[in-house]
Amino acid sequence: MTGDTFDVVTFGETMIRHSVAPGERLETAHETEMRAAGAESNVAVTVSRLGGSAAWLSKLPDSALARHVEASLRTHGVTPVVARSDEGRVGVYYLEPAGEPRGTNVVYDRAGAAIRTATPEDLATDHVESARAFHVSGITPALSETLADTTRTLLDRAVAADTHTVFDLNYRGKLWTHDEARETCEPLLDAVDTFVVAERDASAVLDYDGEASTVAADLAAAHDCETVVVTRGAEGAVAVHDGDVIDQGAFPADTFDPIGTGDAFVGGYLARWLDGASVEEALEYGAATAALKRTVGGDVATVTPEEVDRVVASDTSDITR
Amino acid sequence: MTGDTFDVVTFGETMIRHSVAPGERLETAHETEMRAAGAESNVAVTVSRLGGSAAWLSKLPDSALARHVEASLRTHGVTPVVARSDEGRVGVYYLEPAGEPRGTNVVYDRAGAAIRTATPEDLATDHVESARAFHVSGITPALSETLADTTRTLLDRAVAADTHTVFDLNYRGKLWTHDEARETCEPLLDAVDTFVVAERDASAVLDYDGEASTVAADLAAAHDCETVVVTRGAEGAVAVHDGDVIDQGAFPADTFDPIGTGDAFVGGYLARWLDGASVEEALEYGAATAALKRTVGGDVATVTPEEVDRVVASDTSDITR
Amino acid sequence: MTGDTFDVVTFGETMIRHSVAPGERLETAHETEMRAAGAESNVAVTVSRLGGSAAWLSKLPDSALARHVEASLRTHGVTPVVARSDEGRVGVYYLEPAGEPRGTNVVYDRAGAAIRTATPEDLATDHVESARAFHVSGITPALSETLADTTRTLLDRAVAADTHTVFDLNYRGKLWTHDEARETCEPLLDAVDTFVVAERDASAVLDYDGEASTVAADLAAAHDCETVVVTRGAEGAVAVHDGDVIDQGAFPADTFDPIGTGDAFVGGYLARWLDGASVEEALEYGAATAALKRTVGGDVATVTPEEVDRVVASDTSDITR
Amino acid sequence: MTGDTFDVVTFGETMIRHSVAPGERLETAHETEMRAAGAESNVAVTVSRLGGSAAWLSKLPDSALARHVEASLRTHGVTPVVARSDEGRVGVYYLEPAGEPRGTNVVYDRAGAAIRTATPEDLATDHVESARAFHVSGITPALSETLADTTRTLLDRAVAADTHTVFDLNYRGKLWTHDEARETCEPLLDAVDTFVVAERDASAVLDYDGEASTVAADLAAAHDCETVVVTRGAEGAVAVHDGDVIDQGAFPADTFDPIGTGDAFVGGYLARWLDGASVEEALEYGAATAALKRTVGGDVATVTPEEVDRVVASDTSDITR
Amino acid sequence: MTGDTFDVVTFGETMIRHSVAPGERLETAHETEMRAAGAESNVAVTVSRLGGSAAWLSKLPDSALARHVEASLRTHGVTPVVARSDEGRVGVYYLEPAGEPRGTNVVYDRAGAAIRTATPEDLATDHVESARAFHVSGITPALSETLADTTRTLLDRAVAADTHTVFDLNYRGKLWTHDEARETCEPLLDAVDTFVVAERDASAVLDYDGEASTVAADLAAAHDCETVVVTRGAEGAVAVHDGDVIDQGAFPADTFDPIGTGDAFVGGYLARWLDGASVEEALEYGAATAALKRTVGGDVATVTPEEVDRVVASDTSDITR
Amino acid sequence: MTGDTFDVVTFGETMIRHSVAPGERLETAHETEMRAAGAESNVAVTVSRLGGSAAWLSKLPDSALARHVEASLRTHGVTPVVARSDEGRVGVYYLEPAGEPRGTNVVYDRAGAAIRTATPEDLATDHVESARAFHVSGITPALSETLADTTRTLLDRAVAADTHTVFDLNYRGKLWTHDEARETCEPLLDAVDTFVVAERDASAVLDYDGEASTVAADLAAAHDCETVVVTRGAEGAVAVHDGDVIDQGAFPADTFDPIGTGDAFVGGYLARWLDGASVEEALEYGAATAALKRTVGGDVATVTPEEVDRVVASDTSDITR
Repeated sequence: MTGDTFDVVTFGETMIRHSVAPGERLETAHETEMRAAGAESNVAVTVSRLGGSAAWLSKLPDSALARHVEASLRTHGVTPVVARSDEGRVGVYYLEPAGEPRGTNVVYDRAGAAIRTATPEDLATDHVESARAFHVSGITPALSETLADTTRTLLDRAVAADTHTVFDLNYRGKLWTHDEARETCEPLLDAVDTFVVAERDASAVLDYDGEASTVAADLAAAHDCETVVVTRGAEGAVAVHDGDVIDQGAFPADTFDPIGTGDAFVGGYLARWLDGASVEEALEYGAATAALKRTVGGDVATVTPEEVDRVVASDTSDITR
Repeated sequence: MTGDTFDVVTFGETMIRHSVAPGERLETAHETEMRAAGAESNVAVTVSRLGGSAAWLSKLPDSALARHVEASLRTHGVTPVVARSDEGRVGVYYLEPAGEPRGTNVVYDRAGAAIRTATPEDLATDHVESARAFHVSGITPALSETLADTTRTLLDRAVAADTHTVFDLNYRGKLWTHDEARETCEPLLDAVDTFVVAERDASAVLDYDGEASTVAADLAAAHDCETVVVTRGAEGAVAVHDGDVIDQGAFPADTFDPIGTGDAFVGGYLARWLDGASVEEALEYGAATAALKRTVGGDVATVTPEEVDRVVASDTSDITR
Repeated sequence: MTGDTFDVVTFGETMIRHSVAPGERLETAHETEMRAAGAESNVAVTVSRLGGSAAWLSKLPDSALARHVEASLRTHGVTPVVARSDEGRVGVYYLEPAGEPRGTNVVYDRAGAAIRTATPEDLATDHVESARAFHVSGITPALSETLADTTRTLLDRAVAADTHTVFDLNYRGKLWTHDEARETCEPLLDAVDTFVVAERDASAVLDYDGEASTVAADLAAAHDCETVVVTRGAEGAVAVHDGDVIDQGAFPADTFDPIGTGDAFVGGYLARWLDGASVEEALEYGAATAALKRTVGGDVATVTPEEVDRVVASDTSDITR
Repeated sequence: MTGDTFDVVTFGETMIRHSVAPGERLETAHETEMRAAGAESNVAVTVSRLGGSAAWLSKLPDSALARHVEASLRTHGVTPVVARSDEGRVGVYYLEPAGEPRGTNVVYDRAGAAIRTATPEDLATDHVESARAFHVSGITPALSETLADTTRTLLDRAVAADTHTVFDLNYRGKLWTHDEARETCEPLLDAVDTFVVAERDASAVLDYDGEASTVAADLAAAHDCETVVVTRGAEGAVAVHDGDVIDQGAFPADTFDPIGTGDAFVGGYLARWLDGASVEEALEYGAATAALKRTVGGDVATVTPEEVDRVVASDTSDITR
Repeated sequence: MTGDTFDVVTFGETMIRHSVAPGERLETAHETEMRAAGAESNVAVTVSRLGGSAAWLSKLPDSALARHVEASLRTHGVTPVVARSDEGRVGVYYLEPAGEPRGTNVVYDRAGAAIRTATPEDLATDHVESARAFHVSGITPALSETLADTTRTLLDRAVAADTHTVFDLNYRGKLWTHDEARETCEPLLDAVDTFVVAERDASAVLDYDGEASTVAADLAAAHDCETVVVTRGAEGAVAVHDGDVIDQGAFPADTFDPIGTGDAFVGGYLARWLDGASVEEALEYGAATAALKRTVGGDVATVTPEEVDRVVASDTSDITR
Repeated sequence: MTGDTFDVVTFGETMIRHSVAPGERLETAHETEMRAAGAESNVAVTVSRLGGSAAWLSKLPDSALARHVEASLRTHGVTPVVARSDEGRVGVYYLEPAGEPRGTNVVYDRAGAAIRTATPEDLATDHVESARAFHVSGITPALSETLADTTRTLLDRAVAADTHTVFDLNYRGKLWTHDEARETCEPLLDAVDTFVVAERDASAVLDYDGEASTVAADLAAAHDCETVVVTRGAEGAVAVHDGDVIDQGAFPADTFDPIGTGDAFVGGYLARWLDGASVEEALEYGAATAALKRTVGGDVATVTPEEVDRVVASDTSDITR
């Protein structure tokens, strides 16, 4: 498949997600539901499902769990481009969904994952160079120093090859501190064309406070980003693009599974933007995709373009038959 | 069983319903829950469970799926009176329950169902003639021209035999257009004693607009119906009976499965009315049955008369033990 | 294990709970979920999970269902101290969870349970005497006259041995009438140090009406209780302790399974109070435990001390990862 | 339904069967599969499925579990004719399927079942008198002295009404001793037209030893039975009818669930014999039904007449498509 | 993907397979397991999993069930190349697995499938022409006259393009008679390079009797096939290739699911043969793949090349850890 | 619990076992069954269930998975005595059960387990010293050099305290080579009183060949063991004790889950031997326990002393009711 080119190439860790049923506890559960899950591959799946071509770069051992991850991505049309490793595990996370006051809990078991040693030499970086866009989140550099270096190199190669670079800060408090995240991620931003960051993380990690639009504009200016999108959860998102401020509300959603909502937003945005839409249209499409994601179990947005279009058109009546 | 007579006889298609779990998509689901489901048999089940005797007329092939349908109805005390066909399938529908903005989706796979060729000669129409009431919905004539003719004939025979006729318009946009529905159903109404129609369909299909009570009165006058019930979803129902206007609110309900709510309403109404109650009492009973249905999975109202009585008496406290 | 002493010893019936899935009816269900459940053992489990040592006294036949009950309690660290019986069953209850207007329904199948013949001679009452606290609910004396007598004797022995006695009225309308409950329970109160009662039961069973704080104070005065806790459901609880009135609100909770909430409250209260906390602190801890319980399936509060601390500290943010 | 007459009427207890999955233990299981099960209703189901009309007489409380039993029988076309009781439970049994050396284990929880107090006055015995055949097994008189008396009375009434009587000794070691069974059952045999007994029970309970054909002939002679069928498990069955000895081998079967095999044999035999077949043909049909039953989960023979015919015709090829 | 070329392209119908659990009956089942299944796509999956590249040509409606089929194939690395249809269903089949004497039963619900109208114009036949091998089974021409014509055309185009053609007779008695199959399939054989046929079908459909090797040789001679493989179930297979007779035994297997064994054999054979192996090696590889398939649920051979190699090397020890 | 003493104390890693259903592959499975599993804790569970008191020493992180392990052991009456670690994981293994030629496969994911750093200082070794017997298997020293040292120290302390030492070689080819195992384990044997080894491992790892009785005698002589038990799978076991050779056959068993059979054998042996039985009786008890284990799902022998007694007495009839 060396000759294939993709609309979007992403790079990151995809884990096995074991979730227990609502009301169950990991301590006493007898069954888990098993899915593949990872921020960057979630984005790739969304792009692929919404009409783009997408590949996912990573490093995995030669094992049944690794095949599980790859098969899950292929199901949604994503091409896994995987460096095979003799050492290291497939990362795992456990999910205990719960309402308040317990709250949904994520238990990571991702130590020693094979990807942590991934160097540019391991990876088929030509796919990054031939892609229209390259996407990586702040989770990848958080996993190891090697990965921080590799992320840097891949962004640089993308820039050199005129591949549009997309970076989602995606801060994870269980992986590193605010300071560690800032020290690693801030230098990356100069190689980033489209930067996505949660309002909360812009403040806590990057020390940008104030109105979301100001934060976006300041970040765009500081790092010369083409587009900065500041996400605000239930309040939607604000983007600054070429100096324009674009406000996008969130579509209301009955949440079945909130995990992966942000990745669905980014994936929907990218799919639409790569299809030639304006940033404004892409933001709306991303928000609609994110709302649909919340109705679906698992980390990935198992939705169709028609469904996204229907939400955008606000035709969300209950049952048609 | 030829000699048996029934309080209510219904006529229509009953399908196999395959539903996926909440949060799952048909595209990626690995399991379905399998139940029998059909508007007219839903009504028969409700009548039977609430104390009346009920039969369901239909046409099915000789297959395990057909036996599934019949066994499911017998479970609830309904007598299936089935013409056996050498040709044709058992209709199927797939259900993807979801909250907003995706919304629950029904995927029909009912092409080529055996019932589509059912003629009066196929069917044990003597059961219609000996019954106290005959019920059919607008879904049946929507399925084929043959069925439209057969529906007409059965209504006529019921009228001739002094069997009370009940028709529920039950418009389905996936089966026919508003115009097609009006052209076929409007002529049937002259043979209808009790006509049930959603406010929305009265307007969109039959072009009756205005206050629900006016719509009901106008419809009753136009077609000389004994009773017209206009249903209004969460707002309840309005009936016109012998010139009287009766208003019935909906009982609030935590919805587990909304499919079949309307059929539960009609079945509850009929069971109570055939038991000698007034239209007013019957409407309240129907509304209570409908509210209970929403708490139960599947198309049919697996409830007891005691539960309906308790809701009517508004004794709906949470847990008794 | 004769030599072991426990922070809390409880005495009562633990049943097998068969529950059907939401939306299902017992009449047509094909599967049940099977758990152990009983008010007093629920309290023991909560105490054990939150750091205390706990034993549960009861009487069971020699059967697989009895072993199921004992194994379930051991899972949570509770020591079952069980008199083995040649006669009698393990009590069972069936649970049909449902929203309004149906409401969750409990169907008891507990006739003939082995515990109904339990006398003080059957039981290892030395554990009651060596414990720091002894807990029993009004369900136990409701089950048989023998058990009413045995409950009295155990409370008396506890008092004589300076074991702190805790009684939760826990009125069950499916077991006895208000009058029967009052006649049996009121005389027990003189042997009770900490008395827990629902506001509704204080009125209906014991004829104490008025403000919750007044009810608590009056009950404390009438029976010389050290502490009286009047529980008020979503409104929290009011305690009178040494003349002080302490008000505790309920923590908001997304309810997955409400059964056992009261037992979790009592267990959390006891665990904290036995750990040296004030009644005020213990009430807050109990309320937090009760709120967490509502997010967990089954009768018992499968929670951790850290989770309770987190709720008390109001750190109930949705997902941390 | 008073006017209905049935080919076969049976009388006995039907329980709720909770079974755990293969490899699971009741002590640690978290789920059960729930079905209705009882020797006499198993026979009624088989007759009904194979083309006869069948009713089942019993006594049950007014409860969801009772409705479960009745609904399950109606599913297979059996008419439940049930005396409603204010007292008593629905009997239950737990099943732990296992291979050797553990072996499948049945745990009864049937104490206090409502049927134990059933008198002829409780029951619609006119159905016994109008039926073509009346069937009861030795389990019914084993349950209580009242039931032993009632069984006697029903057999007598059947004889007086010229209803063919069928008695299956069906010895259960967990219900009574060999001596108790003999003392109760032997006197019943004079009222029995067709007597079915396992070779092992003929010896252990009734003290008839020797060749199966001799045992059958001796029993027929001693009690003036029209037909005696001695069942021999994997070796088939031997019948003596009007002095003729008829030998029927067992059809080989891959056993999925062995419970109810004997009832399927009796039901298949009766269905065919009532259809006018010879004892020889009926025995073969019964043996084929029994073999098919072993491939089906649950106590009842969910099979079709076509399947039985196919086994009789030895067309048992693996997959047709 | 127009530019992609594949090792193997297959053409046929892929259905949704609903199977009930062992011991369950379709008539009374409440759940089905849902998978994609079809002879030609089964072969494509096997080739893809064992290292070849594979595409599957077909025609499907635009529906969630169609997407289910496509996603299932992508999971295993197969590229679906699908003509989209406005009319027609996705075929379905129901599976009731059972041991003797019932036997596993397949219930087809495939009437009106969209593929039945597929013409060469609908299909991306350039993939057939650019492929190394083209595979179709006798099921495809059995489905409609249009498909018989299309099959003929595709085989002809393959021959013209020097694509190796593989035809598996795969007779299905539920689709057509022996005579119909012969009349349609025999003329196709002149365009076939590798012909696979069951010994039983060679006799019943094509009237070739005698030793398997003679049958193979006679068929090869009559139709000028490069290779003829006669499969003999548990006895293995016999091939004639360039006049050489090659005998291959079946590997013993504990069968979990027998459906798809033949397709796994053909897929394994093709994968290995296209990898440059001799017919002898390919037969052994196919037989090993077939044996492994029997241990896996579903129609497709979810196995790895390493597992096939291990079986070929006869290293089949029970558990390694 | 510091003051508690136990009949048996074991030391080792207990993992989370995720198993897929029969016929499923890890690559495509959607659910796992989750249990706790580990050779040494399996032995402790068996001893506890069969009447002895047992503790399990280990090191675990503070996590929900760690609590799962501890709760699972408590369920069976085992006391977990666990050093809490800030670093390291809970080991995991995945199980794919399958028949031939695929064979059941175990996929380890146990790298980085917290126990690998356990030193004697971490562990409550006083429990080893106060126990009647101390058990460890060759898996523990295989996990890390630290654990090899700790195992040595614990065996030495047990010897010094007159605790009977039991060592089961339990070679795992996925953990180390034959040579590594020999170099680490052979020196341990001088501190071992009862040595259990599979015939195959005695040869491959320790280079003892010949008749099993000779192997046992030679090993006993070489290392001055009180008892050496050589296990031979389906052929049973041979022990040499004080110069006597004792031969014990295996009880036949229908295998549901073979994992843990050896641990059940050792646990059954120890439970009986500690109860005062001879080695001969203990071997028979162990063999019976092992046979029963094979009928139960999961790694642990969820059986009762009565069941073991029944197997020993060869009363293994199919169903009693």
